[in-house]
Amino acid sequence: MRAVDLIRKKRDGGEFSTDEIGFLVAGLTDGTVPTYQWSALAMAILWRGMTATETAGLVEAMLHSGTVLDLSDIPGPKVDKHSTGGVGDKTSLILAPVAAACGVTVPMVSGRGLGHTGGTLDKLESIPGFRIDLDLAAYRRVARECGLVLIGQTAEIAPADRVLYALRDATATVESIPLITASILSKKLAEGIDALVLDVKCGDGAFMSRIEDARALATSMTTIGRALGKPVQALLTNMDVPLGRTVGNALEIREAIACLRGHGPDDLMEVSLELAAEMLLLGGVAETRNEALERCRKAIADGSALDRFRRMVTAQGGEARVCDDPESVLPRAACIEVIRIDRAGYLSRLAAWSVGQASMLLGAGRATAEASIDPAAGIVLHKTVGDAVAAGDVLAELHFNPSHAKAVPAAVAMFHKAVTISDEPVNRPTLILERL
Amino acid sequence: MRAVDLIRKKRDGGEFSTDEIGFLVAGLTDGTVPTYQWSALAMAILWRGMTATETAGLVEAMLHSGTVLDLSDIPGPKVDKHSTGGVGDKTSLILAPVAAACGVTVPMVSGRGLGHTGGTLDKLESIPGFRIDLDLAAYRRVARECGLVLIGQTAEIAPADRVLYALRDATATVESIPLITASILSKKLAEGIDALVLDVKCGDGAFMSRIEDARALATSMTTIGRALGKPVQALLTNMDVPLGRTVGNALEIREAIACLRGHGPDDLMEVSLELAAEMLLLGGVAETRNEALERCRKAIADGSALDRFRRMVTAQGGEARVCDDPESVLPRAACIEVIRIDRAGYLSRLAAWSVGQASMLLGAGRATAEASIDPAAGIVLHKTVGDAVAAGDVLAELHFNPSHAKAVPAAVAMFHKAVTISDEPVNRPTLILERL
Repeated sequence: MRAVDLIRKKRDGGEFSTDEIGFLVAGLTDGTVPTYQWSALAMAILWRGMTATETAGLVEAMLHSGTVLDLSDIPGPKVDKHSTGGVGDKTSLILAPVAAACGVTVPMVSGRGLGHTGGTLDKLESIPGFRIDLDLAAYRRVARECGLVLIGQTAEIAPADRVLYALRDATATVESIPLITASILSKKLAEGIDALVLDVKCGDGAFMSRIEDARALATSMTTIGRALGKPVQALLTNMDVPLGRTVGNALEIREAIACLRGHGPDDLMEVSLELAAEMLLLGGVAETRNEALERCRKAIADGSALDRFRRMVTAQGGEARVCDDPESVLPRAACIEVIRIDRAGYLSRLAAWSVGQASMLLGAGRATAEASIDPAAGIVLHKTVGDAVAAGDVLAELHFNPSHAKAVPAAVAMFHKAVTISDEPVNRPTLILERL
Repeated sequence: MRAVDLIRKKRDGGEFSTDEIGFLVAGLTDGTVPTYQWSALAMAILWRGMTATETAGLVEAMLHSGTVLDLSDIPGPKVDKHSTGGVGDKTSLILAPVAAACGVTVPMVSGRGLGHTGGTLDKLESIPGFRIDLDLAAYRRVARECGLVLIGQTAEIAPADRVLYALRDATATVESIPLITASILSKKLAEGIDALVLDVKCGDGAFMSRIEDARALATSMTTIGRALGKPVQALLTNMDVPLGRTVGNALEIREAIACLRGHGPDDLMEVSLELAAEMLLLGGVAETRNEALERCRKAIADGSALDRFRRMVTAQGGEARVCDDPESVLPRAACIEVIRIDRAGYLSRLAAWSVGQASMLLGAGRATAEASIDPAAGIVLHKTVGDAVAAGDVLAELHFNPSHAKAVPAAVAMFHKAVTISDEPVNRPTLILERL
């Protein structure tokens, strides 16, 4: 078997056998199929697509390129959630302790963020002492003891995906549904989970701005996951507007803790609890969606979700006092620029992408994979879409440190691009767009 | 400017500016755009194509990635010919001395062959002592003194093409007309020529089997060449049947010398002289095609073409006696397997591709770039398409050395696949299909 012949086959619209996919993925992992062949292949796959059978084969080959964890010695269901990413998306920090409090173990292996803000790992690292680089033995121990664990991708998990992901990022071959499906599912199934809930974001601030594309990705992931024997449930959720009232790492931790204390904003609570409810249903600990939602709300109300979060932070080396007094434990920016509303009306648009870009300019996100982030930087929103506003109202605070002061005018200008005030009242956006 | 953004642009069907192409080609040459990005880009170009303006920009950027020779100190026109390659195609060895004898200097930088037989360079190397690795000073001197020179690609000429050609070969991105156009024209224009004749082969044994594809390639090359100020004339020629009566390196040298002595087979002479005549017309040393053809025939008849060939062989270190007694100078195979006709009729098919494969099995060609070739191996055809045949007639001789004796049954079987005998008389194939 020669890689060049397989590239030609895909280029001409052919379908790979399982053996051919196995050859290509093994070669990717051990380097015998060089990156220049794989990048041409990735472009051919982006062009020609893959059948469901091919995609399932690719998931399996990438999954088995490394360690596949077996968590069957931990009692009860193991369910994870994956999001395609959005601005202000801190739902993992809320739903994981909620699900854990309801009896579903959440063993979460996550990535770092690129773009508007950090990823879940970057957010957690704004808690002093928090370690995301646990080894697999510690990962297993924390999952068992706390019901949730959040770590970074290790060298053992889906090494083929680590090579391919970096290659796709450099070769404009990210936007291929079979390759996205294989990347996400291979990593997630390697965690040792029984089922997976997907949050496919859709809108201005999402990877997929059109609902057709989001639906196609969700359909691919649920179809392939189910074909491989893992129940997968997808929600398409709205990402036209930032989720919650904060964008930025420490700011989002603070908001997540407020949610776990029962003081979260409605939009963020709705999405987090809908996703958590799906995890309970897939895990078999609730019979109906209403029952599941009810249990999730109770886990917030009785403090058991916050307790799970506190145990996880402690087990991963973080300062647990963050749960009681986030203001004094988390890093805070030295400077705040206040943005005010210039006329009365209704906030009808607060475009997530521009808010995310403004946040990145303040130091909260990475423009390149090597860049460092400022955990304290970010944006606090005082209004969101649907709110009535008066001239002079505070719309947002931009939090930054002196190192980024020069970028503030650009961040302010970028933020203003996000905003429209209308004369007519507007509805709040629908958050849960579809269930697949 | 970032390579990944340019890959994305082409992937989405965009058109590159001249600056963007310059950036990509400079990065290819100096390694700052890594091969894994260029291979993904090549696949995107194969998919999306390039406009004439983009292709011309790519030719210019690749041309200027290395030395562009200036032969203006050599009097008279400098014209080269390029063929897309075929089985038994030894026209360069005939037309170059013919054109030189008619006052057109032919400075030919050529490649080695991959597949059925060697390339022109491999054929010449079957002449004892012949050197194809002249430096550019010697190249210039031989061109001036002999009117023709035939060398291999040097490190100085179009280095971007050398990198990209190897990459395309390994990534199934050869079959892109803009990339083929850029590869050929960048190398040829770097030779310091005033004009170029193209022999685009079409048929069973050619890179392009369909006339539409051959025409599209020829149109691209003539359009782009002319846009860059270099007259380019293309002929589409038939490659359903091997050209001439020999396939294999020393065997083809022997046949080329027979042609230069006036004893060549009609088909090979027709294609060689038609191409030579186009070179005379482009070089401005003849007014009409008939006049050009007449001068070419005269250069054969009066021995001046053979004399040019002899001078070139001598100047490049080869044994000039090959022109007088090729049988005793050239290497000869130790063994000959004779293939006979099994029934009377007319030879209606002698498929070039299968004959070429049979020849490769005997050791005359390379299956991989690293393989060595046996200069003595190959096939002598006693009949060609259109000939009346009787049972027992010799159809062909397979020449081989004991090192390849084990491959002979496979070569015989492959050869038989090439042959059809019909009951009805058949016409000889039309050789010159189109002029563009």
